[in-house]
This record gives sequence, C-alpha cells and structure tokens, in this order.
Amino acid sequence: MGFDFKVVGGGVTAPQGFQAAGVEANIKYNRRDLAVIYSEQEAAAAGVFTTNKVKAAPLLLTMKNLENGVARAIVVNSGNANACTGEQGMHNARMMAEKTAKVLDIKEEDVIVSSTGVIGVQLPIEKALEGIDEAAVHLSPKGGEHAALAIMTTDTFPKEIAVEFIIDGRTATIGAMAKGSGMIHPNMATMLGFITTDANVSHEALDKALKSAVNKSFNLVNVDGDTSTNDMAVVMANGMVGNKKIYFGDENWLIFQAAMEHVCVALAKMMAKDGEGATKLVEIIVKGAKTEEDGRKAAMSINKSSLVKTAIFGEDANWGRILAAVGYSGADFDPNLVDVYLGDEKMAEDGMGLEFSEERAKEILSKDHVIITVDMKLGEHEVTAWGCDLSYKYVEINADYRT
Amino acid sequence: MGFDFKVVGGGVTAPQGFQAAGVEANIKYNRRDLAVIYSEQEAAAAGVFTTNKVKAAPLLLTMKNLENGVARAIVVNSGNANACTGEQGMHNARMMAEKTAKVLDIKEEDVIVSSTGVIGVQLPIEKALEGIDEAAVHLSPKGGEHAALAIMTTDTFPKEIAVEFIIDGRTATIGAMAKGSGMIHPNMATMLGFITTDANVSHEALDKALKSAVNKSFNLVNVDGDTSTNDMAVVMANGMVGNKKIYFGDENWLIFQAAMEHVCVALAKMMAKDGEGATKLVEIIVKGAKTEEDGRKAAMSINKSSLVKTAIFGEDANWGRILAAVGYSGADFDPNLVDVYLGDEKMAEDGMGLEFSEERAKEILSKDHVIITVDMKLGEHEVTAWGCDLSYKYVEINADYRT
Repeated sequence: MGFDFKVVGGGVTAPQGFQAAGVEANIKYNRRDLAVIYSEQEAAAAGVFTTNKVKAAPLLLTMKNLENGVARAIVVNSGNANACTGEQGMHNARMMAEKTAKVLDIKEEDVIVSSTGVIGVQLPIEKALEGIDEAAVHLSPKGGEHAALAIMTTDTFPKEIAVEFIIDGRTATIGAMAKGSGMIHPNMATMLGFITTDANVSHEALDKALKSAVNKSFNLVNVDGDTSTNDMAVVMANGMVGNKKIYFGDENWLIFQAAMEHVCVALAKMMAKDGEGATKLVEIIVKGAKTEEDGRKAAMSINKSSLVKTAIFGEDANWGRILAAVGYSGADFDPNLVDVYLGDEKMAEDGMGLEFSEERAKEILSKDHVIITVDMKLGEHEVTAWGCDLSYKYVEINADYRT
Repeated sequence: MGFDFKVVGGGVTAPQGFQAAGVEANIKYNRRDLAVIYSEQEAAAAGVFTTNKVKAAPLLLTMKNLENGVARAIVVNSGNANACTGEQGMHNARMMAEKTAKVLDIKEEDVIVSSTGVIGVQLPIEKALEGIDEAAVHLSPKGGEHAALAIMTTDTFPKEIAVEFIIDGRTATIGAMAKGSGMIHPNMATMLGFITTDANVSHEALDKALKSAVNKSFNLVNVDGDTSTNDMAVVMANGMVGNKKIYFGDENWLIFQAAMEHVCVALAKMMAKDGEGATKLVEIIVKGAKTEEDGRKAAMSINKSSLVKTAIFGEDANWGRILAAVGYSGADFDPNLVDVYLGDEKMAEDGMGLEFSEERAKEILSKDHVIITVDMKLGEHEVTAWGCDLSYKYVEINADYRT
C-alpha cells in the first residue's frame, strides 16, 4: 500500500475520545457478554450490513439510526442474536438503544445496536438493560479489551487491533474489534466489526473507505459458507485529532483508506485463523486473473470448498480439489493454462499434475499457515482470500451450539 | 406422478438385452473397480455432464462419442478420475474406448467412457485394459450388481434400482446404477449415473426425459457443495421391448418420463443417505414458493448449509439456521411470512420462533430420516431436495482421501 502504519494497543479505545466497557450481563454465558463503546463527541458514522434477507431486529434499527450519518455509541450483546423475534424483538432492540442513550445522556437515534448468538429466542431484555447500566459505570479509555472479550461467541480469542498514521501533520488512530468464528462468509458485512477513529472525516469519505476496506477484507473471508442474519461492520469517526476534514478523493483520503484496509485485513485474518475448529489459517492467492471478479470468484470458491478444507486439515496434498473448485467457481479461465502451488511447491502446471515430493508437500501442509496459489496466466489481477481448514472440532462446535 | 411402477431387481441388467460385469482391475482398490455395461443391440443414448470448467478426459471423450445419439457400451473405472491429466489422460481414455470396442466387437465411438476417483494422477492404463479384457469374459445378464459395486468410491453401499412399467401394452423396464457419496452437488450431472432401458425411444425423447428427471433428482441432491470434474448421467435405450417408438410429447413419453424420474429420484435419495459420513437422510421441502426457481434456491441453500447440517448431526433443533439459509439463498420471499417445521412440529410461524417441545424435537431429529419443511406462503410451487448431515466421519473420510 506504500503507507506506514504503527500498530498500537488499545483496540477501539486507542483513538482519542473513545471509551468502552465489557460486562457480565448473564445473557447466556457466565462471562463478559455486553459491550458499550462511547464517543465523547458526536461522530460521523457509517455501516455495512448483511445481505441476508432475514435481518435481525437490532440490525434493522441500526440501519435506520445510521441514516443521518451520525452516532455516539454502540451497544452489543453476545449469546442471543435477537433475530426472528418479531415485534417483541424490535421492541427489545429499541429498549437497548433507549437505555444506552439514557445512561450516556445522548440521543436514542445516535445509538448503534448489535446482537450475536442464537436465532429465534427472545432476548432476556432485563438482563441486557442491567448490563447497560453496569457498562456505563465501567466505561473507560482503556476498556477496549473488555469490549472485545464481550462480543465473542465461539471465538477462542478476542480480536482487536489499532494503528496510528500521520495525517495533515498529526497522529491519528484507527482502532477496531471484531467477532468472527462461525457464519463467516461474504457478501457484505458478514461478521461483527466495530471501528473507531479520531480522524476528522466527512460522512461520505468514511462510508467509501469502509466499503472499500470491507470488500478487500471481510468479504474475502470464509469459515463455513453461511451468511448471518446479524452481521455488520460500523465505524465512528469523532474528529478529535483536529485534522483538516478528509473528503472523498483527497490525497489524505488515500492514507485514511489504506489505514482502514490495514485494520480490516488484520481482523479478517484473525477471523479466518479463529474459524470454528480451525487448526490452520489458509491464505488463497489467485493471480493472473482476467478481471478482479474472476479472481474473487476463484479464490472464494477454493475458500468455500469442504473438500479442499478437509484435505488441508488432513495435510493431504490433494491439489486436484483446488483446481476442481476453480472449475465450478464461475470464473472465466482456461483449465489448460492454470498452475497450482502449495506454499512454494508447484503441484500442477498448465492444468496438469506434476511429480512432486510428498515429503515436501506434507511439510508445507503441516504448518499452521498454508498458502495456496493459483496462477491463471491470463491477466494482471490478483486477489487474496483467507479461510481455514475443516476439522472434527467444527462439527463438534456446531452440532450442539444452541443447547 | 399418477403412474404405477413395479420395482424389480437386476439394476442395469434388468431391461432386456443388457449385460454387465464388474471386475477387479486393481486400479486403486483391492475390490471390483471396473465395470462394463453392454447392449446387445444398438441403443439410442443421451447424457448430462458436469458444469465444471475442468472436465476429465473420459468425460470429454464421452461428450464427443454421444454426439450421434447412439451407443453400445459403457466402461467405467473407480479409483482414478483421469482428470487434470493432459494429453496422456486423453490418450488413456481413448485406449479404454478402443479396448472396449475391440473386445465387444463394436465401434469405438459407441463406447461411453467414465472414471471416478483421485484427480491429477495418470491412470494405470495397463491395469484398466486388462480389466476390460476380464470384464468382457464375465459379461452377464445378471451382472448389474457387480457393475454397481465396481463404480463405488467412498460409497458404503451399491446403488441400483429397476422399475417395470407398461407402455404400448408391453412391459418395459428401466434399470440404473449410481455412484454417489462425496462431490455430490448440482448443477447438472453431479454424480455418476448409468441408466438402461429396453423401451424403444427416439433420441430426442430420451434426451428430454433424462434432462427432466435429472433436474428433479440429482440436481436437488447435495452432500458437500462441490461439483466434480467427472460426473455424468447417461442412458442407453435399446428398444428390445418392441413398443411403438416413443417420441417427445407422446402420451407414452409422459409414462416413460415418469418412470425415469422415479428411478432417478430413488438413486438421488440413496446418494443423499450415503453422503460421506452421513448418519441421516435429510429431506427438505420448500412449499408456497412464488416460482419453482425460488423454491429450488431456498431448498438447496438449506441443503448446503454446514450450520444446518451440523445441527442435524447434533440433533439440535436450531431452526434459526434454516431460516437464515433461506435468507441468503437469493430466493424471493417475505421473512415475516415463513413457517418452519421439523417433521410435523412447527418451530416458527410468520418468521418468528414458537414455543416448542425440546423433547418432541429431539425425538424427530433422532430418526435417520429428517424432514424439514419451509412454507413461504406466497405461491403454489413446491420443491423437494435431499441431503445429509455433516458428521465427524465426513471430515475423517475427506481429510485423507488421496493417500
């Protein structure tokens, strides 16, 4: 990208003027399960949302609340998705916004509400409201990590990152946290991601930077091919760094956008690595594609193939499954031109298997980061996608998630 | 369908004038792995083929050989797909056709060649040719079962069926065998299926009956979402019953087509039931769809969802995942109208969860045949699809298939 970023600690509270908390509301888990993020000043805000036609109540409310491009706080619970819950569900989502607004003394429509967990069960709203009360007490400029812990469902580690970058002579910061694991799949906002920044950015510039970054990161991650009813990525920019406002198309926008992409790609990789039951991060590079779209189709088809994923889990160099997945991806390519690599070992050339060292292949596949490269040798486009293997543990986790 | 069929034994050799054999060619397995089906008279023939852009050599050869709409024999091996094998692969496929033609004293272009197994490894052609020699010796009007055994890969039981039906006052028969298990997924010919009949049918009538039947059967089956490089369904009709030739659009065509569909649906269910690692046959009925296409999209989205499949394996009544899968299917529907049933138990009404008996749900899910019904309450179209659960065993089978 050609820009320098400095990775710093603090997650969503790394930027100036953001406070957060993660508390135990006992909605389902006996651990932190409700987070609030608060911006001391009004923030420009933008979001991307699931393309699933079945949308959870909090998501519908948030889409409405973000229409004016402004927000002050985010409230999120894990353990219950508040999806397929009808009018009662929408009422409960509104109660969460109302309560958050009240305890923070802000406007109800400036609250972003988000939920993740089991579908079709009414949220224990009293517990959520008590949790919001408690979160308000614990809000802190160092609360990022607690918040990241509270949004986890089957995640095995919290996912947060922050980077500093220079804009207009000043040091600005973007912080973020995400919840990944199951139901990670494009298109659009197929996870929970919350991003904060103290840069001063116009709403349009913020919106475009988010969409562009999501497209190069979260939308290229897959765990199990399912797209959730609840997933969203939202960003709040409170401008407290005091830089000259960034507009879309400015030179500074390019820096801001690159920082945003860096943050989102880092989270995307964490999500893939922590895919349910994953033992390996799988990075799929498709190069030489005729168009970006062809590259995306091929990369995501490999990324979603259960046969490829189980072969990688089994450390079996079954490259034929990779080529087969490209074959049914809908990408335009010539099967007789494609090269396939596992790590740096060429397995197939011009669509045909090569003699390769089983030992070397085994060595490459035994690592916890496996790189698959497909070279279509047709054009200049390159796309990278991230996923994981499919293990016994995935089945175990998902066979008994609800109860 | 409104027609009566009598299920009989004998598989592909149930119709008059067909002989078959399944022999041990030692291509990969120490069991029967090469089958030949032979029609004593010239047969009208038609096929449907994988939509994968990467097509195996035998498949390309068969597509060419079927151009004239006539065939006499089918040769199939398991254990090696002869896919991604370049010119050598095409040479080997041709050698199989040539050898089969020679031992049966028929024309090379009247031989249908098919392979299934690992991709990207050259076929041990000498073994295959010796196997064809041996098969010719063992050809028998009772050889259907041996042939069905020889085309198995990870299948746990052979799949064959035959039905008798009355046409033009005479008893005609359709026999069939299939190979399923992994890589079962639409669209088009996503398995190996070989169908024989002694009915007298024009090429066009045969082709249309096959396509229509495949669309209602094999194209609605899913095991793991992967579409193979090799899969095909072909039919040979030798006319030995001596009925008045059936043309497309005849009343008799409707009977013939219904019998063909019956046979294909029966095989489709066997394939779903025997999905790799499956413990349950899952039948998905989408009704009240606005269009057939909406019903198909919704049914196949549920059918492909790893989250739904693992929940069923775990006997967990997580109906929210079913509704979520409909939501991202691309089908046109109203989330606030949908009812969801597990067996006869209504889990959700108008898109919202109902109180239900966990005990009753557990009882339904503990059976080895689970029926999911989604009622969109929007139109008159109904589609049934078949799949299976996703178990530890699936992962085990596919983690180490190649070696």
